[in-house]
Amino acid sequence: MLRSLFKTTILATAVIVTSTSAFAADKVYRLKLAESWGPNFPVFGDAVKNMVKMADEMSDGRLKIRVDSANKHKAPFGVFDMVKIGQYDIGHSASYYYNGKVPNTLYFTTMPFGMTASEQYAWFQYGGGQELMDEVYGKHNLVAFPGGNTGVQMGGWFRKEINSVEDLQNLKMRIPGFAGEVLAKLGATPVNIPPGELYTSLERNTIDALEWVGPSLDLRMGFHKIAPYYYMGWHEPATELMFIVNKKKLATLPADLQAILKVAMHKASYDMYIQSYASSAENWDTMTSEFPDIQVKTFPPEVLSAIKKANDEILSEKASKDPLAAKIIKSQQDYLKLVRVWTDISEYGYIKSTKALTE
Amino acid sequence: MLRSLFKTTILATAVIVTSTSAFAADKVYRLKLAESWGPNFPVFGDAVKNMVKMADEMSDGRLKIRVDSANKHKAPFGVFDMVKIGQYDIGHSASYYYNGKVPNTLYFTTMPFGMTASEQYAWFQYGGGQELMDEVYGKHNLVAFPGGNTGVQMGGWFRKEINSVEDLQNLKMRIPGFAGEVLAKLGATPVNIPPGELYTSLERNTIDALEWVGPSLDLRMGFHKIAPYYYMGWHEPATELMFIVNKKKLATLPADLQAILKVAMHKASYDMYIQSYASSAENWDTMTSEFPDIQVKTFPPEVLSAIKKANDEILSEKASKDPLAAKIIKSQQDYLKLVRVWTDISEYGYIKSTKALTE
Repeated sequence: MLRSLFKTTILATAVIVTSTSAFAADKVYRLKLAESWGPNFPVFGDAVKNMVKMADEMSDGRLKIRVDSANKHKAPFGVFDMVKIGQYDIGHSASYYYNGKVPNTLYFTTMPFGMTASEQYAWFQYGGGQELMDEVYGKHNLVAFPGGNTGVQMGGWFRKEINSVEDLQNLKMRIPGFAGEVLAKLGATPVNIPPGELYTSLERNTIDALEWVGPSLDLRMGFHKIAPYYYMGWHEPATELMFIVNKKKLATLPADLQAILKVAMHKASYDMYIQSYASSAENWDTMTSEFPDIQVKTFPPEVLSAIKKANDEILSEKASKDPLAAKIIKSQQDYLKLVRVWTDISEYGYIKSTKALTE
Repeated sequence: MLRSLFKTTILATAVIVTSTSAFAADKVYRLKLAESWGPNFPVFGDAVKNMVKMADEMSDGRLKIRVDSANKHKAPFGVFDMVKIGQYDIGHSASYYYNGKVPNTLYFTTMPFGMTASEQYAWFQYGGGQELMDEVYGKHNLVAFPGGNTGVQMGGWFRKEINSVEDLQNLKMRIPGFAGEVLAKLGATPVNIPPGELYTSLERNTIDALEWVGPSLDLRMGFHKIAPYYYMGWHEPATELMFIVNKKKLATLPADLQAILKVAMHKASYDMYIQSYASSAENWDTMTSEFPDIQVKTFPPEVLSAIKKANDEILSEKASKDPLAAKIIKSQQDYLKLVRVWTDISEYGYIKSTKALTE
């Protein structure tokens, strides 16, 4: 009888424990994430899935993140606002998409003639980049983090060859961010178009050219069927996506889940860089064998030189108008100067000096 | 009365919950880690500290890792064995330190004329590298993971200039791994020496030259005071340290703590690469201004060519003697061939094509 009573008590306690702990250590925190991409979007969407899976596993299911793709929330370029007002808790997007709308978001994705991925990660973590991003996003109740790097992006798909600066006149091209502004100064018409509408826009002549990413993503978009000239990159040497988090919402998470979320986002960003690298290498190999009609081109030196001149002029204008912009631009230029010397000695120098021996 | 009884039950339950959870979700798991480095060793040791801190924070203190440095366990090159037999649960070391003792550990750190850091991470994750490492380490009750990359290492500090292949004859040099074997074929005498004894060995003429890492770590070692010729690298383009974990011990952790440990190790490895990059850039800048007597050199092309020939011959010998070695070497060479084409188009091509415009 005593034993039976004991048994009953244990069982009753077990039930109570489960229900009580739901309010303490085992409480499940549910966050909503809006991404700028369509569902199952390769590489970019994989970074989000990777982050969500790590957060779930590391928290033993206490941190659940629901992902809404662009087809659900209908606002691929509204991610910033939706997270700012708390409609979503987290966003996955690109900082430069909000250029023109939110001051100084432009500088945290990639800059023409700027840093490569490793150089830029070093700037974010050791060169003051993250602190500057905090300054820009903090004003909007947001905290932003690197969200995955594509590596050097290709210069884009063109219907016609670009042989001179004149060929850029009246060229309608999908090219977001600062690079778009630079080409506008040389007479082109840059536009931004949501990823899902790119192919149709090129097909229907709404645009004459576009840049998207590179071999990791471009081939499945089919651009090569309508625009055979594939130019090497100058404008996005290290395109870093971003995770943005609603600051107030982040503060409501227990410290361990905040740590889990931050580490998961950070690791997912590095992972995407490596995935992009591997995928680009594989797809470049596929491309050169399966689509021999694609013509890989470099812009002529005088075109690149004119672009660089326009680039520097616009940077000076921006710096003169906005002290925070001036601070960010100086930080990036100073860091590039410091770090590129090392890149030249190390990875660039190594590949250069062993090139003849390894080909 | 009913209300009062209800209150009492709640209180009693609360006490039971606290005491029960101490035996379940809140159990603290304590692991011991042995590192090959001395205490507070920069960069390498920082990777370990970074990993331990992430694991602690993400687990809310449920995963505690005690770190023993080489001065404590007295076996900088015994880390493999100590983790294998379970004397330690985790190790932080370099796979190639166990070359000659444990078959095929040689290939998972870096290879002369091999992949750069991004290329090698891509190989680990998408080119079969991790699976091959699992095959090698699984035989020893161990699982190994990337543990932090130094980037391209410098070719080393030399007392005298190397102007010809003859200058390598009888050269006593601290250079571990495969590179040591290659130089031995050309008449040099490679040795491995624990990090803490390097300076004294060079000072006392026990060795004529040494390679350590690069500007991120070399300057504080003081080598430049006794060996002024600093050669650019060929032999370690992407030195990746490793975390090794005792397989049985890993399996005793709950799934969430296993996930936390793996993510923390993986993120710490990427983080170390970025820290090395930033630190190398900063120290290179310091070096060129504060130590103008250091002479930065490249090996003459005929020396590099002879080294490459010796390199390829030894690789062929190794492949012919051991089927697993042959499989690993082929995997690395095939992947390098695939991925370097993309590096040439992307990061190398970008820096090359914009070089004149950014200097």
